[in-house]
Amino acid sequence: MEEEKTYHTHVSEDGTEFTHSHNGHAHTHKNTKVVENRLSRAIGHLESVKRMVSEGRDCSEVLIQLSAVISALNSTGKVIIKDHIENCIVDAVESGDRKAIDDLNHAIDRFMK
Amino acid sequence: MEEEKTYHTHVSEDGTEFTHSHNGHAHTHKNTKVVENRLSRAIGHLESVKRMVSEGRDCSEVLIQLSAVISALNSTGKVIIKDHIENCIVDAVESGDRKAIDDLNHAIDRFMK
Repeated sequence: MEEEKTYHTHVSEDGTEFTHSHNGHAHTHKNTKVVENRLSRAIGHLESVKRMVSEGRDCSEVLIQLSAVISALNSTGKVIIKDHIENCIVDAVESGDRKAIDDLNHAIDRFMK
Repeated sequence: MEEEKTYHTHVSEDGTEFTHSHNGHAHTHKNTKVVENRLSRAIGHLESVKRMVSEGRDCSEVLIQLSAVISALNSTGKVIIKDHIENCIVDAVESGDRKAIDDLNHAIDRFMK
């Protein structure tokens, strides 16, 4: 069964519009650019970790850099969760969309092991 | 004070040679290729997570993919640690290189929070 999706567009603080569908709801994320930038930095950092491995750099140094990438990704995940709560879950609760909350809870279970 | 570094080359199981210096010791890592491949896959996966964010895909889906990348990086870190113990720490103990062990312990503290 195809779920009906409706879209509406919000304007975020920096003036850019952002529409996002979520099982019939559309939401704005203020931190989309922040999240994209953090992911770009993590990708660059991970490329440098890979270079360290190729160059045979000391394992302890590689591990420290790898754990810095993991920490950065964990904190990016937290930004995504908080943004989602702020911008989507509040709407979902108001419109009685239980599925959005269940989906988030499921994702949090997977994310925070 | 410049530490003296000596290098020696080992031949790993797949026939490739790999030399790695570690405060006067040189070591072979059997799993260098494995680690490089895992890091490449994680980079590709992270690029697709970034694309999901740009496309405004559902936060719960983004979080699940992000946590898959983090799990993959954690398990890559474990491969690096085990490889290091197998190939470097055993040598370090035999040659009484306490610093290699201290460095690894420090890196493990940072890695396993």
